[in-house]
Amino acid sequence: MIKITRWLMPLLGALTMLTAALPSYAADTFNWKMVTTWPPNFPIFQTGVVRFAKDVETMSNGRIKIQVFAGGELVPALQTFDAVSQGTIELGHGAAYYWAGKVPAAQFMTAVPFGMTAKAMNAWFYYGDGLKLWQEVYAPFGVVPFPGGNTGVQMGGWFNKKIDSVKDLQGLKMRIPGLGGKVIAKAGGTPVLLAGGEIYTALERKTIDATEWVGPFHDERLGLYRAAQYYYYPGWHEPGTVLEVIVNKKAWDSLPPDLQKIVESAASSLNVTMYAEFEASNNKALRELKEKYKVQILPFPADVLKELHRLTKEVLAEEAGKDPLFKKVYDSFLAFQADNDAWTVVSDDAYSNALKE
Amino acid sequence: MIKITRWLMPLLGALTMLTAALPSYAADTFNWKMVTTWPPNFPIFQTGVVRFAKDVETMSNGRIKIQVFAGGELVPALQTFDAVSQGTIELGHGAAYYWAGKVPAAQFMTAVPFGMTAKAMNAWFYYGDGLKLWQEVYAPFGVVPFPGGNTGVQMGGWFNKKIDSVKDLQGLKMRIPGLGGKVIAKAGGTPVLLAGGEIYTALERKTIDATEWVGPFHDERLGLYRAAQYYYYPGWHEPGTVLEVIVNKKAWDSLPPDLQKIVESAASSLNVTMYAEFEASNNKALRELKEKYKVQILPFPADVLKELHRLTKEVLAEEAGKDPLFKKVYDSFLAFQADNDAWTVVSDDAYSNALKE
Repeated sequence: MIKITRWLMPLLGALTMLTAALPSYAADTFNWKMVTTWPPNFPIFQTGVVRFAKDVETMSNGRIKIQVFAGGELVPALQTFDAVSQGTIELGHGAAYYWAGKVPAAQFMTAVPFGMTAKAMNAWFYYGDGLKLWQEVYAPFGVVPFPGGNTGVQMGGWFNKKIDSVKDLQGLKMRIPGLGGKVIAKAGGTPVLLAGGEIYTALERKTIDATEWVGPFHDERLGLYRAAQYYYYPGWHEPGTVLEVIVNKKAWDSLPPDLQKIVESAASSLNVTMYAEFEASNNKALRELKEKYKVQILPFPADVLKELHRLTKEVLAEEAGKDPLFKKVYDSFLAFQADNDAWTVVSDDAYSNALKE
Repeated sequence: MIKITRWLMPLLGALTMLTAALPSYAADTFNWKMVTTWPPNFPIFQTGVVRFAKDVETMSNGRIKIQVFAGGELVPALQTFDAVSQGTIELGHGAAYYWAGKVPAAQFMTAVPFGMTAKAMNAWFYYGDGLKLWQEVYAPFGVVPFPGGNTGVQMGGWFNKKIDSVKDLQGLKMRIPGLGGKVIAKAGGTPVLLAGGEIYTALERKTIDATEWVGPFHDERLGLYRAAQYYYYPGWHEPGTVLEVIVNKKAWDSLPPDLQKIVESAASSLNVTMYAEFEASNNKALRELKEKYKVQILPFPADVLKELHRLTKEVLAEEAGKDPLFKKVYDSFLAFQADNDAWTVVSDDAYSNALKE
């Protein structure tokens, strides 16, 4: 037996040391699926999500593998939240206001009319109560949210007639979802719900008089300039639309701290780079729409914006009256916005004006 | 021998399998130092760097450990770049315009008078030529840069007399470094170089007539309201000051791809969260300065801004004439800014105006 022991002991020792050296996580590999609310290859949105998945896989050295599916490839786009909530899918990317029917307060986490822009939304999320409230809003559904992108200020939309005064909104059939739609209804218009793929035909056939979509880059791509000739700004209804990375709570809890931080960091990184890609892409399209396609790019008249702003306050107050959670988030949102707007007057606004001197 | 073999074979097999399962990186641990240009515990700046270091350590599960040192703790603040370039230190955090004496083109990577704001700088870095040019500018020094924070639009500074016209700049002794200082000199003033710790006393003893620093949050903390009563906006000389994470090239190359991506992602994350913290902190201080300390918060007159803008173009053209690399970066910067400014007119600017209707 002596010979066996002499060989065996160092080997057993080496085995024990190796096992100890092996990081505790190394054994766990996570093969996750991620579904989104975007069409396949949808630029900036879906391509950003693919970048996120790749970043997570690289940072985790393959311990998290994410298979990304566009809307409809695995589940319908608007079932993204449900799929992640139920845990059939671990990860999702979309926009919180799509889930307004389930939880109205979610709308503040994407965009509300005359609400905060990208810089203020991020300040509210990361250094105000924003993200904490978002987690509270999604907790009953077992979903963990992260800010994961921003479109910047959107455009006001495409119109087949000029909007010269508040009267021109009366009877207007406009594709505009959510709170913006409620404001248009209050102004005497008719909000219409249409999926992205149906917009062009409806506008071209005059089933609708107007539509909002995203911004110059995506609007040009959808060919909307062939269906309407007036392109209005600014996007009063979506001043800094936040996209979200959502994670099933049980899947999230199953990750060790290093992998949790990797997912969180990849989402923050996507948050800043997606916004950057929008800012880098919109002006070229805007110029083409103006110069190549002879679109009339017009500002909403001041009195129209003033009236829409007034009606927005009515709509938000009504929603707050119906739902205590909506009111709780609205109060936090309003206070933070008032604070940031006051700072913006002496910073970004004053600087933008200075540039024009 | 048969008995030995019977015991040994499965053990050897297990050993081989374990060695194969052990990720290739697990053996490498990196004990890195990080120096900064900031005072110890300097809020938002230094505290952000500490957060970055912790994020990297968490994401790498301790495979990168970063010891953070404030300016002067290990090397003087303004030797941060040299220390990282020489490789005595692996990581640094500061602002590229501090290295203008070494490489003038670096100034575009932080802030130039009447240049781009945070959103446009990020668009230029991530989806324009910005980061590529930054890498080119730092390559001769063996330093790899990443955007790692933004102050947002700064304030114009503290003055012990009113600035009613361009004439009031003549003879003005103002603490304002870099390109902003060159513009003030052209306007007939005298730019003075002072470290942060010397500013208060110089202003209080009237050795200088004026100073710029950061924004309300940091300016209040430095007590500048006790030394001058006029606080001007906007910060025409620093409209979106970018902070940097810098890595020694050899240290960077020694990292496996997963750890490289972790450092890069932590820097992007710091980039968005540091800006968010500034946006969340400035207004409270602004309000206190106004209400509690009775500071007069005033806009620069339009003709003063117009003249400073004109002189800025002269200064930048002169610098471009002296240095081809400066010119190359300036051309890219100018083109990108013109493009983004045109988009900003119909997006952020129009929306800010709409909010005021």
